Amino acid sequence: MTDQKQKPFSFRLLKTDGMARRGEIRTPHGIVRTPAFMPVGTQATVKAMYPDQVRALGSDVVLGNTYHLMLRPSAERIARLGGLHKFMNWPHTILTDSGGFQVMSLAQLRKLDENGVTFQSHVDGRRYEMTPERSVEIQQLLGSDIQMQLDECIALPASPEDTERAMRLSLRWAERSRRKFEEMGGPGRGQALYGIVQGGAEPDLRIQSATALGEMPFEGYSVGGLAVGEPQDVMLRMLEITTPAMPVDKPRYLMGVGTPEDILESVARGIDQFDCVMPTRAGRHGLAYTRFGKVNLKNARHADDPRPLDEASACEAANRYSRAYLHHLVKAGEGLAAMLLTWNNLAYYQSLMQGIRDAIEAGTFEEFRARTREDWARSDIAPIG
Amino acid sequence: MTDQKQKPFSFRLLKTDGMARRGEIRTPHGIVRTPAFMPVGTQATVKAMYPDQVRALGSDVVLGNTYHLMLRPSAERIARLGGLHKFMNWPHTILTDSGGFQVMSLAQLRKLDENGVTFQSHVDGRRYEMTPERSVEIQQLLGSDIQMQLDECIALPASPEDTERAMRLSLRWAERSRRKFEEMGGPGRGQALYGIVQGGAEPDLRIQSATALGEMPFEGYSVGGLAVGEPQDVMLRMLEITTPAMPVDKPRYLMGVGTPEDILESVARGIDQFDCVMPTRAGRHGLAYTRFGKVNLKNARHADDPRPLDEASACEAANRYSRAYLHHLVKAGEGLAAMLLTWNNLAYYQSLMQGIRDAIEAGTFEEFRARTREDWARSDIAPIG
Repeated sequence: MTDQKQKPFSFRLLKTDGMARRGEIRTPHGIVRTPAFMPVGTQATVKAMYPDQVRALGSDVVLGNTYHLMLRPSAERIARLGGLHKFMNWPHTILTDSGGFQVMSLAQLRKLDENGVTFQSHVDGRRYEMTPERSVEIQQLLGSDIQMQLDECIALPASPEDTERAMRLSLRWAERSRRKFEEMGGPGRGQALYGIVQGGAEPDLRIQSATALGEMPFEGYSVGGLAVGEPQDVMLRMLEITTPAMPVDKPRYLMGVGTPEDILESVARGIDQFDCVMPTRAGRHGLAYTRFGKVNLKNARHADDPRPLDEASACEAANRYSRAYLHHLVKAGEGLAAMLLTWNNLAYYQSLMQGIRDAIEAGTFEEFRARTREDWARSDIAPIG
Repeated sequence: MTDQKQKPFSFRLLKTDGMARRGEIRTPHGIVRTPAFMPVGTQATVKAMYPDQVRALGSDVVLGNTYHLMLRPSAERIARLGGLHKFMNWPHTILTDSGGFQVMSLAQLRKLDENGVTFQSHVDGRRYEMTPERSVEIQQLLGSDIQMQLDECIALPASPEDTERAMRLSLRWAERSRRKFEEMGGPGRGQALYGIVQGGAEPDLRIQSATALGEMPFEGYSVGGLAVGEPQDVMLRMLEITTPAMPVDKPRYLMGVGTPEDILESVARGIDQFDCVMPTRAGRHGLAYTRFGKVNLKNARHADDPRPLDEASACEAANRYSRAYLHHLVKAGEGLAAMLLTWNNLAYYQSLMQGIRDAIEAGTFEEFRARTREDWARSDIAPIG
């Protein structure tokens, strides 16, 4: 469907500022400005948002979850209907994960061996097999622009032995994934397959993993196995060790991260892409992200507060509805609460990313980082009455 | 807040076609084109819709439920925050019910006497008293443009004795409501108070109620106590008997009605205003209203259907998303299902109202009615595969 000659996958590094990188990814479905935050569209929808809203906030790419989509409505059905872009009305770039992470966290009766994982669907109990090859096949059926290798992601803390075993298995799966991706013609369609660095909290293993993957011809690299239970300082230390061992000329994606602070600090350590359910999930639980930190709208102190979440925001959800109204919607269990707070939260995340990109371009990332952290520390919770 | 001299409540009858009426209501917050469908915004939100979307579909007025709002966040709080229009970001006309209907259907430990109703909140169990005077007071605190008298609405079927007792009580409450409304300066602010015709399925009582209310200086009149369990033909027969006994120069509002067919047939019997939860509630339960009848998106037959609900619709929810995708969203329990289907359903209802208004203006209402009924009878369910 796409002219493969005109639009191969590419990454250009436009500017660096310290370790922070400003770049541009081109995919068959558009340009992704990096550092990029990728809203999570688990079941072919970014929860409680119309796709046009997601785009209007400055999202260049959304994430789809292979595990959920393979179970319902199935990758084959999405392929028959013209692929995931068309199915979910998102004509821009789509990144998919391999499905491995959700298999390990959501599925039942999992059995992992060298070949792959067998598991039972959490939706209807049917048995499935997931291998590195099948994961690529599913992502091809979905028509994803940026695909992930199947890996084994273990929770932290973990023993060095378990960490090394999982890391080496992930490397072998990386080779099998790459072979399948090339067999299926992914590179010719301008698609990307990313290898995933594992190695837990073991510096040596992280470096070995990054180095070995760097010798394989992946279009980009993910850092997996972080934000899985460890303290933030462990995560940041691992990034400091890992990113220098990753290719400079390829995009770097930190999977499943994170809070605004995680993102800011990870950009400072050379990361280009992020995804996280936090802004969307928090939006469904009465939590708003703002320039001045988080606001818990369930709290009764907001019941009479006529102020919007942030009158300086360009997002209607932030500048037009009073905290009193949002509090009411949350207490009353109204769907509009999730709609407005998710909108506000994604708007905040994307405005943070825009601020980060602008600052790197201007060579003022350190000032931006300091100022942003200061703003977060301020509280604008109003006195009651 | 509004210049009362410039914008008193008014109703102009612009055109009739048979019994069908094309009119225009002016309130302090705008013009309401009649026949009008008023989306229900029970808890200060039309469920799963942004207020701008509700407006863009051609809604001139939304309904707020006094019972829900008095319990949460309370009428006093809404008044402190500047009134219901500001609270819910709806600067157009708002109609409120009296609260009586929900007190009788939702509240616990109800006790009704001449003075009013005492009841226990379904939200937190607190005791409240609702009288004709208190209902007007609450609606004034909300700042509603079109207010309703408190009445007693009984379920059908009912005995003639019960029906008459409730009708006569409602007439006495009408007088008390009117007195309170004038004491509080409603007419001076250009607001309206409607009297409510009761009388169950008893023609004589309906005519007595309409006649007695017509002698009181209400700005408009509602028909209550229909669509409460009786067959459609009983409802329509009651309308045929009731509307000729109602003032010609005042708007007529059929409360809580109904299906597209109910609305079309009630317009044909002289009704100007409608409200119903059907399009919004159905949207949250996987049901879509279209020109060609209802589509139940839970049904597996839609799983591979690439067609939108109605490609000729001007609404994105109807013309842009495949039935296969909508089916997936419904099955997956995604919020976007309710958002898209509610949007589609309100778009259909409002396009039906626009069609009705255009047809009355053109003197072609009978043709429109016949053609619309033919379209509903057509099925556009696709063969599978």
